Amino acid sequence: MSVKAVGITRRGRGARKAIRQTRDVTMLPALKRRLPPCEPMSAREIERIDAASMAILEDVGVVFRDPVALADWRRAGADVRGETVHLDRGLVRELIAGIPASFTYHARNPANNLPFGNDHSIFVPMTGAPYLRDLHDVRRAPRLEDLADFHKLSHMLPAMHSTAHHIVEPMDHPISQRHLRITYSSMKHSDKTFMGMTTSPKNAQDVLDMCALLFGADFMETHAVVTGNCNGNSPLVWDETMLGAMRAFIRRNQPVLCSPFVLGGANTPASVAPTVAQLNAEALSALAYTQVIRRGAPAIYGHYLSTVSMKSGAPMAGTPEISLMNFMIGQMARFYDVPWRSSNTLGGAKTFDAQAGYESATTGMAVLMAGANYLWHSAGWNEAGMHCSMAKFVVDAEQCAMGYRMAEGIRWDDFDEALGAVRDVGPGGHYLGHPHTLENFQRAFFMPEMFDNNSIEQWQAEGSAGITERALLRARDLLNEYEEPRLDADVDEALRDYIARREREIPAADALNQDR
Amino acid sequence: MSVKAVGITRRGRGARKAIRQTRDVTMLPALKRRLPPCEPMSAREIERIDAASMAILEDVGVVFRDPVALADWRRAGADVRGETVHLDRGLVRELIAGIPASFTYHARNPANNLPFGNDHSIFVPMTGAPYLRDLHDVRRAPRLEDLADFHKLSHMLPAMHSTAHHIVEPMDHPISQRHLRITYSSMKHSDKTFMGMTTSPKNAQDVLDMCALLFGADFMETHAVVTGNCNGNSPLVWDETMLGAMRAFIRRNQPVLCSPFVLGGANTPASVAPTVAQLNAEALSALAYTQVIRRGAPAIYGHYLSTVSMKSGAPMAGTPEISLMNFMIGQMARFYDVPWRSSNTLGGAKTFDAQAGYESATTGMAVLMAGANYLWHSAGWNEAGMHCSMAKFVVDAEQCAMGYRMAEGIRWDDFDEALGAVRDVGPGGHYLGHPHTLENFQRAFFMPEMFDNNSIEQWQAEGSAGITERALLRARDLLNEYEEPRLDADVDEALRDYIARREREIPAADALNQDR
Repeated sequence: MSVKAVGITRRGRGARKAIRQTRDVTMLPALKRRLPPCEPMSAREIERIDAASMAILEDVGVVFRDPVALADWRRAGADVRGETVHLDRGLVRELIAGIPASFTYHARNPANNLPFGNDHSIFVPMTGAPYLRDLHDVRRAPRLEDLADFHKLSHMLPAMHSTAHHIVEPMDHPISQRHLRITYSSMKHSDKTFMGMTTSPKNAQDVLDMCALLFGADFMETHAVVTGNCNGNSPLVWDETMLGAMRAFIRRNQPVLCSPFVLGGANTPASVAPTVAQLNAEALSALAYTQVIRRGAPAIYGHYLSTVSMKSGAPMAGTPEISLMNFMIGQMARFYDVPWRSSNTLGGAKTFDAQAGYESATTGMAVLMAGANYLWHSAGWNEAGMHCSMAKFVVDAEQCAMGYRMAEGIRWDDFDEALGAVRDVGPGGHYLGHPHTLENFQRAFFMPEMFDNNSIEQWQAEGSAGITERALLRARDLLNEYEEPRLDADVDEALRDYIARREREIPAADALNQDR
Repeated sequence: MSVKAVGITRRGRGARKAIRQTRDVTMLPALKRRLPPCEPMSAREIERIDAASMAILEDVGVVFRDPVALADWRRAGADVRGETVHLDRGLVRELIAGIPASFTYHARNPANNLPFGNDHSIFVPMTGAPYLRDLHDVRRAPRLEDLADFHKLSHMLPAMHSTAHHIVEPMDHPISQRHLRITYSSMKHSDKTFMGMTTSPKNAQDVLDMCALLFGADFMETHAVVTGNCNGNSPLVWDETMLGAMRAFIRRNQPVLCSPFVLGGANTPASVAPTVAQLNAEALSALAYTQVIRRGAPAIYGHYLSTVSMKSGAPMAGTPEISLMNFMIGQMARFYDVPWRSSNTLGGAKTFDAQAGYESATTGMAVLMAGANYLWHSAGWNEAGMHCSMAKFVVDAEQCAMGYRMAEGIRWDDFDEALGAVRDVGPGGHYLGHPHTLENFQRAFFMPEMFDNNSIEQWQAEGSAGITERALLRARDLLNEYEEPRLDADVDEALRDYIARREREIPAADALNQDR
């Protein structure tokens, strides 16, 4: 049978051209997952992890390298010995019960607000890359204009729910002042949600002050408008920089991702379940501390998760144990009824090659099946996070749109009508001209634009373009078509004034002390 | 923290070298899945698909373009009108109840026998490629020696449970006689399980006669030793060639994969659930027919599944709807308590690029999470099946080993011991020298050898080898290290005599009529 679309072809060249030309840059709503998550642990095994984590918190304790946090913990009734805080499981449970299971994550354009937590998931781009592979696939140091390009792409790619913050590090600006320009770029180039820098307590304050200019300080008191990430130093240590940044966010009722930084086998035991028990204890200790700072403030169970090659010491991604741990962590977060974050598309490939594809897709499928709420690093990640690839950014964003469709689950609304088509067509027929097909073909099966599924002859006739070339062409098109969302002129001026003032106040040379 | 493996490094260069040099080519046992499958349908929705499929079988019917099958169906009590067989749901249920839920799939080396069905899964290489990308990544017509190389690789790659049959088409042999050489190559180069050609009823007979020489005709009467695939012509047609081959296998009690060939949207409705309802009806009709031929014979619920781009007509893989349909088909096969086959690593990329990686990993994760028993096309597939890539073959096989590890689920046997390590190490320490790490590091976290996770500096210093280059180097090493498993000299002679006789009997020129 010829697969040439009979019915479709008859609709004519104009119709097909119209399909191609209507580039939909409308953001997809927050994903509402209907696919059941993968849950490999029984209730008894969940309790076993919980009990082990609680025993770690009680007996081993967690180091908070921060006098303010230690004083806070003492006041909260914890057993503090030196810098080590021993947390009674009753106290931990009582504290984490204060964390909202869900909230609305607000964008400056209310149309881009995101319901967050429970069965909702959002896709957030990668961040923190010290290099980029640019529109010519050249690996180089990023500038502020490159960051702007990534923010513009995030704004236009429908499955991206956020512009994040420093997708790439703008190396052309002093490190001590960089957070101001990064935050402004997120705010200016998109009206989707964004993230806030947590590189120091003072930097976090700047971010929150800028958010107050954008959203209003009163609004922020009762609405989440920016997320901040705080990494732990596994095993079982939280440092002053992160805890200070955490306090800045939580005091203003803004959600913090509490993220143990796991290199499985190096800073955790060389085994899956015990690694989750340790990570869980670490996350719980920080989640509990958010509620010591401000009861009821939103907080997110986080982690950064890689396993370490015992041959080379290199971090690895896309490995089976990372998938298993994600499934387990999802179960733990749901057990505690707190939203949780995972990392998507991780990998160690040096170029946008088959390794990058395997690693990203494996990770992406795993974290979707794990039911993560906050899918960070969902676009652009490569080379263990050392570079963000423009080409991969565009392809990953399409992969997120595909994962989104899968996680939405099965449609049943046209079931009976389509069974009528089976009767109409009968044995040996085809469906291409059937009314049901004509009505449904656009939404029925995802048609990835970054994948080439033509014959090799056609592909060669069209220039044998590889996926990197195709994706960079798309990136260029998107950037050409980009339209900046309107930002109130007074707000814009206030933000610029704030930055100008802070750039006068912060010494450009005081880089290493300010921004860790 | 430095990730350099302190404890490991102290074990010395010799230990690390020994790890590298011990290439384990021992086959992994059939995977016993402990990860729960993804089941998006409720019991009511499963019954809805079942009811729809049964209504299709009763009201629309299935065309069997084959006088023998029509006569068989009449005798079995079906309502036969012309070539269309209308199957009452009671009859269908009664027939498929005869299919064994599990059996042992025998290899000529009993150490490689595979428990099959229920929670067991096996990985089988791709088949049917008219081109290969060879050890120099050149795309060309395959020869018999290329097929032998793929059979040798299948023999050596631990996660491959079968050598399949015509991984690539040996174009240097007449098409009418090719099945003899293909079968011999599978039998000779490996002592794992293999597949049998079903390109015509006579070819299938030859395969089964050769199996009788290898295993003994009596043994075959009570033991499964070879699988044959029969594709349906969707919608709702089975042809004479496939049905004749099916009878050849089933009459000798050998398992047949009953595989509707779905191009979603072209030969099924443009919608997920109705496509599954049609596919399910098609599979049931063939499964039921196997039991008309021989009650109790092993049969496998199969399918080949792609969705069609409504823009270009091209088949697509790695799409979200294919994942959803696999999850659903898994539920239906378990509902009927029959083993089932899916396709792994499908994709349309022209080279071994990022697209190939995304497509293969997405498909691989989906079919593992779907709980498929027979994971066909698990290595080498590219370009919509038009070529088998040597490089991809090796990488896919490692991906299968990784998927195997994930699907095995969580180990708990060292949980308490590892928690002791958490107490020993304490906050801020590291695990690299801990006895638990030294005892467990080799099995704790999968270390993919085809992925490069080193720094870019190290990668560049080592020659910036891409994944294709690395994989082809591995393929060459494996082929150099290959040792042919012993085949009894009398059996070998009998097989060669059989082939010589049949090659005299089958006209080499009668190509197109013999082998469809």
